[in-house]
Amino acid sequence: MSAMELHPIVGIGEITNGTNLAAVIAEATGPSAAVHLHDGDVVVVTQKVVSKAEGRMVAIDVDDPQAKVALVESEAVRVLRRRGDLRITETTHGFICANSGVDLSNVEAGTAALLPVDPDRSARRIRADLRRLLGVDVAVIISDTFGRPWRRGVTDIALGCAGIAAVIDLRGTPDATGRILAATEVCIVDELCAAAELVMGKDRGVPVAIVRGVPAAWFRDGSVKDEVVRAVAEDLFR
Amino acid sequence: MSAMELHPIVGIGEITNGTNLAAVIAEATGPSAAVHLHDGDVVVVTQKVVSKAEGRMVAIDVDDPQAKVALVESEAVRVLRRRGDLRITETTHGFICANSGVDLSNVEAGTAALLPVDPDRSARRIRADLRRLLGVDVAVIISDTFGRPWRRGVTDIALGCAGIAAVIDLRGTPDATGRILAATEVCIVDELCAAAELVMGKDRGVPVAIVRGVPAAWFRDGSVKDEVVRAVAEDLFR
Repeated sequence: MSAMELHPIVGIGEITNGTNLAAVIAEATGPSAAVHLHDGDVVVVTQKVVSKAEGRMVAIDVDDPQAKVALVESEAVRVLRRRGDLRITETTHGFICANSGVDLSNVEAGTAALLPVDPDRSARRIRADLRRLLGVDVAVIISDTFGRPWRRGVTDIALGCAGIAAVIDLRGTPDATGRILAATEVCIVDELCAAAELVMGKDRGVPVAIVRGVPAAWFRDGSVKDEVVRAVAEDLFR
Repeated sequence: MSAMELHPIVGIGEITNGTNLAAVIAEATGPSAAVHLHDGDVVVVTQKVVSKAEGRMVAIDVDDPQAKVALVESEAVRVLRRRGDLRITETTHGFICANSGVDLSNVEAGTAALLPVDPDRSARRIRADLRRLLGVDVAVIISDTFGRPWRRGVTDIALGCAGIAAVIDLRGTPDATGRILAATEVCIVDELCAAAELVMGKDRGVPVAIVRGVPAAWFRDGSVKDEVVRAVAEDLFR
């Protein structure tokens, strides 16, 4: 393996309903920018700007906790746990997360951001638009910030992807001692989102970062929905 | 935020009971190496080489599934789920993971690697030794590969750390719109391990990587045990 680089993409302005995210990213990585897009880059875009661009904002009375809970539950197909106002839910996508991914931070007051309807599709659109606008062949991942049941602190994970495998299956590959590995399907899209988050900074309003130097073998049609979301039948904790 | 770099450390040979890991890392990053250690680097070391160096290998009859299950259960303080030979357990450290972290891959045939007794301490030792040997002030994280209950594919997370915060608390920091953020304690050590894994490659026998460019504000005394392991009272899924 050789080195990789993580670059924040700065200078992305306010995103509203109908903003073409690829055009904004193209502008922010244009000739006068510090970072340009190259073939083989992985572009990680946070869910919030995708939700804004796709018009997934809804009005909410933020001073009424019941209104938030009702919205959260309306976005869920299943509520796994309740504690106070917190709900751990399964979304229509099959994600298990806090409050159905409904987000009140970094959005206009009186509004909440819902998750994109189909984040793999969101990623495919941005990827196709970047190719059209810039002539570059990049992968795109839509990231979000999730908690974990047994570990404190949030980390960024992938909601959707395009042009890159979500999971790399190393099962059946001999390990360094020649034995066959077990349980080594690595969720590279989640690791790429975690890496990208390190240069975004939650409080700095940097919604896009790129990972450069990813192995060529990882680039193929991928899907978070198909590869990462665990089926109920496989699940020991639902 | 500015850019970060991920560098694999190649040329680390076989690790056995009593190997001084810092000395091996110092050798592999010496004057003739491609990558040298600098102040402010984050050195991520995989659990397996730490366990080997600390003599945490035990003999096991790998052809006897019951022997493995017995070993796994002997390393657990609680068994959360059973499916076939798989156990989801709580270890003495408070980690919830598959098979108590007992690992049969990339180890000598007939042996299994147990988790380090105190991974924060393991990290502190390597950090102190690197300072003594090379005069560098780096952070050290011990990483391992865990599954997740609701997402397929494994990712690397932190078992222990030294010289770096495990979790950065952004609660109370205004977001980009000036509102106060909620639920933004970011587990940076897990994100750093995920990033490092991208340049290690499970099947390539690269047990150490460095992350360069981490903000100075993140460097302080940190502990996975104290900051990341979730107390039972906070836990909705145990």
